[in-house]
Amino acid sequence: MKQQIPFSKEISLAFENDPPGQWLSVLPKGCIRLSSGYPAPALVPSEEIKSAVVQLLSEEGDLPLQYIGSPRVPKLKEMIKERLAGRDVVVAEDELLVTAGACQGIDLIARVMLDKDAVVAIEAPTYMEALEVFQNYTDHFISVPVDEQGLQTERFAELLSNRKEQGLPLPRILYTIPTSQNPTGTTMSLERRKHLLLLAEEYGFFILEDDAYGELGFAKEPRLLKAMDKQDRVLHIGSFSKVVAPGMRIGWVAGPAELITTLGWFKKDIGHPFTQSTLAAFLEGSDFDKRLVSLSSTYQSKCMAMLSALKDFLPPSVSWYVPEGGYFVWVKVPGANTTDLLPEALNAGVSFVPGKYFFLNQEEGNEYLRLSFSYASKEEIVKGVQLLGEVVALDFRKDT
Amino acid sequence: MKQQIPFSKEISLAFENDPPGQWLSVLPKGCIRLSSGYPAPALVPSEEIKSAVVQLLSEEGDLPLQYIGSPRVPKLKEMIKERLAGRDVVVAEDELLVTAGACQGIDLIARVMLDKDAVVAIEAPTYMEALEVFQNYTDHFISVPVDEQGLQTERFAELLSNRKEQGLPLPRILYTIPTSQNPTGTTMSLERRKHLLLLAEEYGFFILEDDAYGELGFAKEPRLLKAMDKQDRVLHIGSFSKVVAPGMRIGWVAGPAELITTLGWFKKDIGHPFTQSTLAAFLEGSDFDKRLVSLSSTYQSKCMAMLSALKDFLPPSVSWYVPEGGYFVWVKVPGANTTDLLPEALNAGVSFVPGKYFFLNQEEGNEYLRLSFSYASKEEIVKGVQLLGEVVALDFRKDT
Repeated sequence: MKQQIPFSKEISLAFENDPPGQWLSVLPKGCIRLSSGYPAPALVPSEEIKSAVVQLLSEEGDLPLQYIGSPRVPKLKEMIKERLAGRDVVVAEDELLVTAGACQGIDLIARVMLDKDAVVAIEAPTYMEALEVFQNYTDHFISVPVDEQGLQTERFAELLSNRKEQGLPLPRILYTIPTSQNPTGTTMSLERRKHLLLLAEEYGFFILEDDAYGELGFAKEPRLLKAMDKQDRVLHIGSFSKVVAPGMRIGWVAGPAELITTLGWFKKDIGHPFTQSTLAAFLEGSDFDKRLVSLSSTYQSKCMAMLSALKDFLPPSVSWYVPEGGYFVWVKVPGANTTDLLPEALNAGVSFVPGKYFFLNQEEGNEYLRLSFSYASKEEIVKGVQLLGEVVALDFRKDT
Repeated sequence: MKQQIPFSKEISLAFENDPPGQWLSVLPKGCIRLSSGYPAPALVPSEEIKSAVVQLLSEEGDLPLQYIGSPRVPKLKEMIKERLAGRDVVVAEDELLVTAGACQGIDLIARVMLDKDAVVAIEAPTYMEALEVFQNYTDHFISVPVDEQGLQTERFAELLSNRKEQGLPLPRILYTIPTSQNPTGTTMSLERRKHLLLLAEEYGFFILEDDAYGELGFAKEPRLLKAMDKQDRVLHIGSFSKVVAPGMRIGWVAGPAELITTLGWFKKDIGHPFTQSTLAAFLEGSDFDKRLVSLSSTYQSKCMAMLSALKDFLPPSVSWYVPEGGYFVWVKVPGANTTDLLPEALNAGVSFVPGKYFFLNQEEGNEYLRLSFSYASKEEIVKGVQLLGEVVALDFRKDT
């Protein structure tokens, strides 16, 4: 628990030590970005958002620029509620909080539900920003492995049962990205979803369902954990970052009213009326379902290009999960240290994120790397994977 | 310390119990808003911001809508640094954090510097949102009275010295709005500023200088505490809410590099590239110094109208401080309970904020109310004060 040390050197050093975002923002010119978890430039509706702002400010004048007053702020909340209802998650007004991105939602939940003695269960690997958030509050973690069916609930059940037997504290929350997970791209099966909900009930923990990629599936969307939840054990976190624009920073948390009220109490950036009313104006003027279908199809086609290039250009010992949606392909390069591989890849003209950043115990990630098919064009993806293949092949030769 | 109680009923109840914002947002139609701490609609540059967004997105495309990439995000930071330098506060890149409004800055500082045992010194009265932030972290406060010269540093020195003698813990931070304070409108004298800095050194606390109204003074601006600070004891908090638009939610914290790095580590809404680059585009196209001069002069003229109406329409026993800037006039109605007065005022067609919300010990605020001259027009201000005068006179007659 680091937050109680004013001016903590430890925190500053941790920050300076190993900032994955930093070298990603200074990529060599012309480098193909298979590292960025960003939407493709062409898929960010900047023209439509420009029109939305013009319409918004022409119609409402100063209202969206004041603290409160824009009718589109409650309207956005209503739109989120309606979209959730269409996915079998029916929430009341006081069960939904609009946040400045999904990450703020995760942080607020951590802020309210964790203390230095709390145990947090996480997927291994998991979203690195979430891991950073939880590490601000506690040092106690349970890592549960993920495979092509998502979180290994049988393994989790074993871990929980062992802890109970040994009298060790049980987790207060489990953080999961059940659909098109970051970084593995895999989706939790229906059976495991059911099992997980039973475990939550049996062992008394809450499930943070991070659904950032849920609407970007290539096939039929699996049922949301929140939609299957009969015990108010699921806190559902959503975001417009992957389906509209990350720079607007708009997400939400849906959960029990009492928790949502409390999260609001700790949300001290007040509201974000300008961006929220802009997003509402954008959504009014767009067929969002159609947008999602088009995005999913575009990303699927880019994903297929990446998978096909991986088959063509990577040595046969290299393996990966076949994603069912989202932004990422998780690649295993047996025997490699992907952190050492990165400078060579950058030098060759392609970027990726080394696997270690997605694990609490970073060494577990040494053989892995995350490729993103969201940002680069299809042509760049193929070229980038080819370059990566050359770097990996060179590395293999060095070792033998 | 409330944050360690998951699902705390206490927090939810505190929130539901007494939300000043709530009744302000449902004012009776036609009610003159002397409660709102908002800029006047005509002073919010909505047309210019519209043009700025059009220019921004035409020039940069998707960049401001991605997580990172807009060149205007670092440019905004540079502009803030330059403006601060013009006010004798020279900060390096790593000594400045751009935040989602001043309130987020206060919250981040509290998050990093406070724990449940920490003592916080506050002005009495003070900004209610700040009070709420600190109460999320600790129950230990020292209230220091404010008068027409600002924070009473002699009184503060006594309180500190007594605590030291008695072996009581000394404050970790003092929160002050030294210039055009919210709610009193008064400005700390130069002598008291010097005295306060000496006290910070002697007793080892940090000063949070909230400068939300500093650039809206009617006369020459007093020296910033941060500009006089030789010991790195001042954390300077600024905002564009009062001088551009509150709904954009942009502020900053300037302080020692190590603290700023740590604040950034806990700032989990990531950045706000869309609003920050929009603001930068707006500032590029505007003469900001000219804007400040014009704003100050408009607010001064509205303030004079309010003071003159107070003289004309309020009973002679009612008194107030003469503000030197900012948004507010702090009015004392001897013998009144301003919370009880409010429904009558709303009924008559004018709103204000009862004094109790600005005090830790709310009873201290019973005889006070805060009027804002920022939002209403001059004509509304005069009419509103007249209505208030009638309500107060009626209340006086009831009592006798």
